[in-house]
Amino acid sequence: MAVSEIDRLVQMLAKLPGLGPRSARRAALFLLTRKEAVLEPLADALARAAQTVRTCSTCHNLDTSDPCAVCANPQRDDATICVVEQVADLWAIERTGSFKGRYHVLGGVLSPLDGVGPDDLAISDLVERVKAGVITEVVLATSATVDGRTTAHYIADRLVGTQAEVTALARGIPVGGELDYLDDGTLVSALKDRRAV
Amino acid sequence: MAVSEIDRLVQMLAKLPGLGPRSARRAALFLLTRKEAVLEPLADALARAAQTVRTCSTCHNLDTSDPCAVCANPQRDDATICVVEQVADLWAIERTGSFKGRYHVLGGVLSPLDGVGPDDLAISDLVERVKAGVITEVVLATSATVDGRTTAHYIADRLVGTQAEVTALARGIPVGGELDYLDDGTLVSALKDRRAV
Repeated sequence: MAVSEIDRLVQMLAKLPGLGPRSARRAALFLLTRKEAVLEPLADALARAAQTVRTCSTCHNLDTSDPCAVCANPQRDDATICVVEQVADLWAIERTGSFKGRYHVLGGVLSPLDGVGPDDLAISDLVERVKAGVITEVVLATSATVDGRTTAHYIADRLVGTQAEVTALARGIPVGGELDYLDDGTLVSALKDRRAV
Repeated sequence: MAVSEIDRLVQMLAKLPGLGPRSARRAALFLLTRKEAVLEPLADALARAAQTVRTCSTCHNLDTSDPCAVCANPQRDDATICVVEQVADLWAIERTGSFKGRYHVLGGVLSPLDGVGPDDLAISDLVERVKAGVITEVVLATSATVDGRTTAHYIADRLVGTQAEVTALARGIPVGGELDYLDDGTLVSALKDRRAV
């Protein structure tokens, strides 16, 4: 039996992160019963995004222009570069509004188990950008996971001998964190990096 | 500032049931980093569904043909009609494979608080279909909620005087249900409708 257009739509929606087969069916029905209000605008938004969104050739952010809005903004600090794993991390930092430098998106983390080596990430690019000479600080904003830390260490090693200072995000108690519920690693970091009040 | 194509995509995805603003951003990034594999096939599936899927003029099911596959199937029993609230309910009953009659999708439930009256649902259609004379049983498969039951009672009243017998889904203990955790209403129904073993 040929797969109907409805089944195909459900199958495609089920590929999205956060939607399983059941919620994909719900989403498909929601769309099919709201053709003008939701289905067509969504199809349109997808088609436009597919046409216009590209990867920035400097920092690997996603944007409708290349260089991206962050790289093209003359107001931002050229001397500081923040290294993140994914575009989502860049967006998260941008939402805080507390970083005014440039970015570099690696496209993942080193992960020998998954076969991800240095050549699969945008690390050589980063080293080139730093060697070009303007950058004085590289902020490593990778995840506090084993792979994230390994990646940060590897990048720090690669940047030895350049003029840039390499820093990393602070580790400590998250806002709202109760000591009793924190893991030991976080508590050890928070104690080690304690600061004068 | 103009809303970028990426923001528009995130906003449209966030309208889907089951996706909030955060998971919509995740879904958008997932799509944008997998243009050929996921984004374009999804845009294509949406466009095709928008073009081909329509409401069946007999039972109000959604399908690529009118009459829908269920109404057009000559193997199914013309004498029994199952009344459901939504297309999702029809799909749920079809997945069980244990009903071989026809369907009638109401498009919702009577809900005075939300301003949904009998004229907003496909009830008059249903009465016409029953009065046409072939149908001997109408199975009311509305939800076991206050609105669902009100709707079922209303429909049963409207069908008084026709040749069709009106039945409703059994109430009782769901498969896997533990007595201790069931609500009182379900237990009362299960006791009242107890049957010989």
